[in-house]
Amino acid sequence: MTTLATHPRLVSLEGGEGAGKSTVLEALRIALGADGDEVVCTREPGGTPLAEMIRALLLDPAHEPASPETELLLMFAARAQHVRETILPALERGAWVLCDRFTDSSFAYQGGGRGLDAGFIDELERRVVGLRPGLTLLLDLPVAQGRARALGRDGRPDRIEAEQDAFFERVRATFRARAAAEPGRFRIIDASQTADRVAAEAVAQMQAWRNPA
Amino acid sequence: MTTLATHPRLVSLEGGEGAGKSTVLEALRIALGADGDEVVCTREPGGTPLAEMIRALLLDPAHEPASPETELLLMFAARAQHVRETILPALERGAWVLCDRFTDSSFAYQGGGRGLDAGFIDELERRVVGLRPGLTLLLDLPVAQGRARALGRDGRPDRIEAEQDAFFERVRATFRARAAAEPGRFRIIDASQTADRVAAEAVAQMQAWRNPA
Ligand SMILES: Nc1ncnc2c1ncn2[C@@H]1O[C@H](COP(=O)(O)OP(=O)(O)O)[C@@H](O)[C@H]1O
Ligand SMILES: Nc1ncnc2c1ncn2[C@@H]1O[C@H](COP(=O)(O)OP(=O)(O)O)[C@@H](O)[C@H]1O
Ligand SMILES: [Mg+2]
Ligand SMILES: [Mg+2]
Repeated sequence: MTTLATHPRLVSLEGGEGAGKSTVLEALRIALGADGDEVVCTREPGGTPLAEMIRALLLDPAHEPASPETELLLMFAARAQHVRETILPALERGAWVLCDRFTDSSFAYQGGGRGLDAGFIDELERRVVGLRPGLTLLLDLPVAQGRARALGRDGRPDRIEAEQDAFFERVRATFRARAAAEPGRFRIIDASQTADRVAAEAVAQMQAWRNPA
Repeated sequence: MTTLATHPRLVSLEGGEGAGKSTVLEALRIALGADGDEVVCTREPGGTPLAEMIRALLLDPAHEPASPETELLLMFAARAQHVRETILPALERGAWVLCDRFTDSSFAYQGGGRGLDAGFIDELERRVVGLRPGLTLLLDLPVAQGRARALGRDGRPDRIEAEQDAFFERVRATFRARAAAEPGRFRIIDASQTADRVAAEAVAQMQAWRNPA
């Protein structure tokens, strides 16, 4: 597995903390399942028992901080497992797979945010992931707004949420640059709108992608 | 960090299960510390709190099996952390570092054993490890003998110890091939001898390496 295949039934949701990914996922799930198709909703890091244990290591502030390289490899270890145990089996039986974050998040957080070389992340993607979503919805939001929403949602910030604004500005810029570079795969959604409007726009963009005029 | 530096005060011990690495480590520690030098003894996977938690995920048979790629990336995630948090700081303050397994084990187990591409492992080594031991002692032993010793030591085999003999034959062959390819760094020790003789030979080889005639 050293090349990248685009899978038309894999749809990913990307964006910063509090952009509304988990909220939108539910609307997309309902829309995709309306014709009776199976829809598997999953998330990263995570998506299998082992990958969820890796997620816990990544986000738990109990042990010493992971070096950027450690964090990157843990993310891809979890993703390698998720792709093989959950995503590929679902795609092979014809299901839709809706994923809350996928490889673009590693480019944004470990690449843009932490400053690791994008060429190395490219190589990890080709070597251990081997597939790209047919559609990626980027929920784009000013950093301060996402932070305010995420703080409202839960109490104590996890390891990554505890970063500074400059970190999240780099994350946002990397997401936007990737979307600009791959307009065929990405749709950018203004996530500063109300939750209902964001969900409606996400569903409309997905339907337009499924059934081009 | 994309190149490989050889560090003269980093010494690794390699070999299959039950070869006697942990037993020999103690003899080497005493010999290296005889002149009053600081000696840090450590092991892989592990060597920091986070890396030991990754080790527990790797060896624990409770969750679903890790895919070969997941296993490889978890090994290098632990190693990236170990190098930055434990090994480099010790080397920088002038200590000797004695490591029970290091990168050669990934070539032997995930490469030779699991069949993953050695070129990818090379790249991970250059990208996230960046250093090689000055001396690597390979404790070489027929597979059946190592297995008998390891079984005598503990009860239930862990995830990797539960593999078949053919797997461990590939591991052994890979270690020997790496030793043959890098005679300047490796010394091969016949680990089928008594524990006392193995330890004496390991110490003698190390002293000859430190003080060439
Ligand atoms: N468009 C929106 N406007 C205001 N609040 C929102 C919007 N979308 C989501 N939220 C709220 O913001 C918080 C974060 O949303 P969530 O879907 O968990 O974001 P993410 O999964 O992208 O981190 C939640 O409390 C959610 O109810
Ligand atoms: N040369 C030897 N001959 C016989 N038994 C040995 C020898 N070296 C070690 N042992 C025993 O074999 C078992 C495995 O040794 P250990 O040092 O834990 O190996 P490793 O760390 O390479 O897996 C232990 O019970 C140890 O006491
Ligand atoms: Mg969420
Ligand atoms: Mg041991």
